Amino acid sequence: MDLRGQSVVNFEVSRNGRTFTAFNPVNGQALAPEFRSAGPEDVDRAAGFAERAFKSYSRWSGKQKAELLRRMAADIEVLRNDLIERTALETALSEDRLHGELTRTCHQLLLFASLVEEGSWVGAQIDRADPERKPAPKPDLRSILRPLGPVAVFGASNFPLAFSVAGGDTASALAAGNPVVVKAHPAHPGASEMVGRAMAEAVRKTGAPDGTFALLFDAGTEVGRALVEHPAIKAAGFTGSRAAGRALADLAARRPAPIPFFAEMSSTNPVFILPRAMAGRGEQIAAGLHGSVTLGAGQFCTKPGLVLVGTDSASERFVGRLGELIAATPQSVLLTAGIGKSYATGVEHRARLRRVAGPAGSGKGFGASATLFETDIDRLTRQPDLAEELFGPSTVIVRHSSREQLLRFADGLEGHLTAAIHGTEEDLREAADLVAILEQKVGRIVFNGYPTGVEVSHAMVHGGPHPATSDARFTSVGTQAILRFARPVCFQNFPDEALPHELQRANPLGIWRRLDGRLTQERG
Amino acid sequence: MDLRGQSVVNFEVSRNGRTFTAFNPVNGQALAPEFRSAGPEDVDRAAGFAERAFKSYSRWSGKQKAELLRRMAADIEVLRNDLIERTALETALSEDRLHGELTRTCHQLLLFASLVEEGSWVGAQIDRADPERKPAPKPDLRSILRPLGPVAVFGASNFPLAFSVAGGDTASALAAGNPVVVKAHPAHPGASEMVGRAMAEAVRKTGAPDGTFALLFDAGTEVGRALVEHPAIKAAGFTGSRAAGRALADLAARRPAPIPFFAEMSSTNPVFILPRAMAGRGEQIAAGLHGSVTLGAGQFCTKPGLVLVGTDSASERFVGRLGELIAATPQSVLLTAGIGKSYATGVEHRARLRRVAGPAGSGKGFGASATLFETDIDRLTRQPDLAEELFGPSTVIVRHSSREQLLRFADGLEGHLTAAIHGTEEDLREAADLVAILEQKVGRIVFNGYPTGVEVSHAMVHGGPHPATSDARFTSVGTQAILRFARPVCFQNFPDEALPHELQRANPLGIWRRLDGRLTQERG
Repeated sequence: MDLRGQSVVNFEVSRNGRTFTAFNPVNGQALAPEFRSAGPEDVDRAAGFAERAFKSYSRWSGKQKAELLRRMAADIEVLRNDLIERTALETALSEDRLHGELTRTCHQLLLFASLVEEGSWVGAQIDRADPERKPAPKPDLRSILRPLGPVAVFGASNFPLAFSVAGGDTASALAAGNPVVVKAHPAHPGASEMVGRAMAEAVRKTGAPDGTFALLFDAGTEVGRALVEHPAIKAAGFTGSRAAGRALADLAARRPAPIPFFAEMSSTNPVFILPRAMAGRGEQIAAGLHGSVTLGAGQFCTKPGLVLVGTDSASERFVGRLGELIAATPQSVLLTAGIGKSYATGVEHRARLRRVAGPAGSGKGFGASATLFETDIDRLTRQPDLAEELFGPSTVIVRHSSREQLLRFADGLEGHLTAAIHGTEEDLREAADLVAILEQKVGRIVFNGYPTGVEVSHAMVHGGPHPATSDARFTSVGTQAILRFARPVCFQNFPDEALPHELQRANPLGIWRRLDGRLTQERG
Repeated sequence: MDLRGQSVVNFEVSRNGRTFTAFNPVNGQALAPEFRSAGPEDVDRAAGFAERAFKSYSRWSGKQKAELLRRMAADIEVLRNDLIERTALETALSEDRLHGELTRTCHQLLLFASLVEEGSWVGAQIDRADPERKPAPKPDLRSILRPLGPVAVFGASNFPLAFSVAGGDTASALAAGNPVVVKAHPAHPGASEMVGRAMAEAVRKTGAPDGTFALLFDAGTEVGRALVEHPAIKAAGFTGSRAAGRALADLAARRPAPIPFFAEMSSTNPVFILPRAMAGRGEQIAAGLHGSVTLGAGQFCTKPGLVLVGTDSASERFVGRLGELIAATPQSVLLTAGIGKSYATGVEHRARLRRVAGPAGSGKGFGASATLFETDIDRLTRQPDLAEELFGPSTVIVRHSSREQLLRFADGLEGHLTAAIHGTEEDLREAADLVAILEQKVGRIVFNGYPTGVEVSHAMVHGGPHPATSDARFTSVGTQAILRFARPVCFQNFPDEALPHELQRANPLGIWRRLDGRLTQERG
C-alpha cells in the first residue's frame, strides 16, 4: 500500500496543516512519507459527517454491525505482512510482538461482532403492565442500552494496533452503534493510515453511512482538543499520559454539555510478594517479574513498577537475582524520543534511591538500559513522586519492615490498573485485609502472576480508580468496554411494532432479557 | 418524636453553625424547633466515620444489607402518621400525596433489599482458565461489581421523603455497599431528622458499623460543597436546580481525584400531540395534561412544560379546553419562598408570550396561580430560555406549522428526562423519525400517557442527556440506580476460598453469572 500521508476522511482535507513524519526509533531517522496535520475545520467536518452518519448507523441491527466489524477485521488481516513491516519500522517493536498484537486487534473486532450479533448486551429490561393495580395502573416499561453518538478515539503510542485506529475503543464504540473519529498517534502514522484506509473501505463495502469512521492526523494537540470540545462528539476514549489525559478530561467536563471521557492514564501496578512465596520460589518470581518489567521495553500500562518485599534473607536473594537479570538485559529501543527523554529524566530522578542494577544515566534518544532501584516505604511515603509511573524497563523494590507498615502503605496507594500478589494459599489467607484494601485501589488483582498480558474476554477489567483511569466504573478491555458508549432508554406503553426488536413481545432476536425482574429468553 | 434540631451523627457536632427553621408554606410562619447547620469540621468527621465504616460495611453480604434496608423501611413505617403530619406542615403537600410518597420510599428500600439479597445485580463474569492455550495459557478471570466508597446524598425539596434522607439515592448507595452521608434539604428539616434518626437506629439495631449513615443539616451551601470535595467521599447524588447541580458537578470534576457526580437537574419534558389523537381525543388529553401539569403544584422534575400542537381546529379546541382547566385551577401553595419567587419571575418572563390562562402576575410568597402560555417554534428558537424548566403549575403550548419544522425543533432540543407522544398507532408509525430523534434526547419516551408518575421498577430510566442529568448512562430511579455506586473488580487466578462468594466455583449464592460468555446459574 502506498502511503498518502493524508487523513482518512470522506471530504477534501485542508492544506493548511503542518507536515510531520514518523521516525525509526532504531536510528532516529525520519521515515517517508510526510503526513499532513488536520486542522480545526477538518475536525468540524469529520464530526459533522459522524453526526449525520449516527442518524442511520445508530439504528443498524446487531447483525449489520457484526458484518461491518468482521469486514474490518478481514480487511486489516489482508494487510498483515505489509502492516507489520511498517509498524515495526515506526515503533521498533518486534515482529513477533506485532503479529500477536495484530491478532489481538482482529480478535477484538470479531469478539464485539459476536457480542452485538448475539444481542443480549443491550441489557433489555421489561416490566409488564398491570392495568388493575391500585391506586394507579402499572404501565408497560421496556428499556435497553442505546448508543451515545459520535465517539472520539485517541490512538496510543504503545499499542500501535490494539489501542489505536482499530483498537478496543474503536471496536467497542462502533459495536455499540456510534460512529468513530480517530485521532491517530503521530508516532506511527503509517500504520494508522494503513489500518484507517482498511476501515474506511470496510465502511464503504458494507454500505455503512459516510462518516461512520474517520481518521485525522495531527502532530500536535489541536485536533484532539477540538474533537473533545466539538458539540457533535458525545464521548471520547484516550490512552496516554496522566497530564494529557487529565487535561482532556477537564476539557470534556467543562463543555456546556459535558461528555463521558474515558482516559486510561497512569498506573504503577504494585506487586506484593508474601513470605512463603518468597521463601519457596523467590528466584522464579524474580525471573517472571523481570520478564514482565522488560516486556515491550517496559512500555505497558500494566508494567509492574513497585515491588513490595520484606527484609529477610529470601528477599535479599530475590533482590540480588532480579538485579542480575536487570543488569544482563540488552539495551532496549523506546517508542519515541519523548518516551526516551522521560525515561532518562525518570531514571535520573530516581538517582536518590539505591541503584541495584543498570547504569547511572540512561541512553540518549530512543535507547534505554534496564534499571532496578530500591527504597523503603518510609522514603516513598515522604516522596510519593518516586512511585509514579515510569515508562521503560525499570522498577523499584520497596522494602517494608512490618505487616502493619505494608497495610498502611497499601491504604495510601492511589488508583492503579492492577495489583499482583505472590503467595501460597496460606499467605493469601493471612493477607485477606491486604486483598480487601487492594480491591478498593485497582481494577484487577492478579494472584501468582504478572499484570502484563491483558486477556480480551468478558470478565476482564482493565480500569481502576483515578489516576489509573478517569472513570473506574468501566473497563477499556473486554466485552464490557461496550458499556462506556451506551446509555439506557425506556419506552413506556409503546405498541409492539414501534418498539426496537430487542424489546418486542415475541423476543424475535431470542436475547436474554430481564422480564419482571427475572432473566429469561422467553417472550413477554 | 421530639425534634432535636441536630444533625444525626455519631459524634458531638460543633456548636458554631448558624440556626435555621422550616417554614409553613401555607402562612409563611417559622416552624419550631431551630435546627443548627453543621460546619466543615462536621463534614470531615462524618466523612471520616463513613470511610472507616466502609471497610467493614463494603464486605457485608447481600442478606445483611437486605436486613438493614428492611429494618430502615420498618422503622420509618412506624413513624408514618407523625412523619406525614410534620412533612405536610413543612411542605404544604397533601397528606394523600405524602402517604403515597412514604409508601414509595419504603417500597424503594424493600426493592433494593430484594435485589441485593437475590444477588445477581453484581453482574458476575467468569472466564475459565485454559492452561493448554497457545501461545499463552488463558488465566482464570472473575469479576463483579463492588461498592465505590462513602456516597454523599443531597435531599431534594420536592420529594421530602422519596428523594431525600431515605430516598432512592440513599437506598441504592447503601444497597451497593456504600456508607451514606446525607445533606438534608433545609426546607423540610423536621421530616429529615425523623427519617434520619430512624435510619441511624436501624444501623445500630442491625449491627452495621458506626458511620454507615449520617445526616447533616445546613441552611446554606457550605456543607454540600465540603462533602463533594472531601477526599473520603467517592460519589454523590443530587436532585435540584440546574445551576446548583452544575456547580457541584464542576467541583466534583475539579477534585485532584474526580468522583462520579449524579445530578438530576433540569427537564421541560416536551409533549407531542399528533394529528389523529388530537382530532379523536383532544379534550381527554387536555384533561390528562392539566392533571400532570398541576400535580403537586407543578413541582415535579417530569412536569410537562412544552406542549407541541398544530394549528388546525382540533388543536384550537384543545388549547381552549386546557386554558379553561388552567383558569379553573385553585391557587397552589409552593414548597418554598425561593420556588415561589422563581415561579413569579418565570411567569413574568413569559409575559412576552401569549397568555392563554392565569393571572398576569403570580401570587406573592408561597402562593401560585396556574398559568398557560402559547408561542410558536420560531419564537422559541429565537428565545430558547423561554423553554427552560419552570417549577410550578405552568406550561407552554408551542405551535408548529409543519412536520419538518417539528422535526427540526426536536433535533434542536437539549436533554430531558422524558418526552411524551400522543397519537394513534398510525400517527406513531408516521412519526418514526420523531421517535428516533427523541430517543437521543431523553431517558424515557411515554406513549399516550403523561410523564409524571415515575414507576419504581427494573426497566425505569429516570435520566437523560445533559442538562436533564449530569450522566445519561445511569438512571436515578429503579433497581438499575444501584449501578451508579459500584465498579467492576477482577480477580485473576484466585484460589476459590479467597474469592467473593459471588465468584466461587460452586456458585453458593445461586446467582446468575456470565460463564465463558453464557448466562447461567450453574457452578463454574
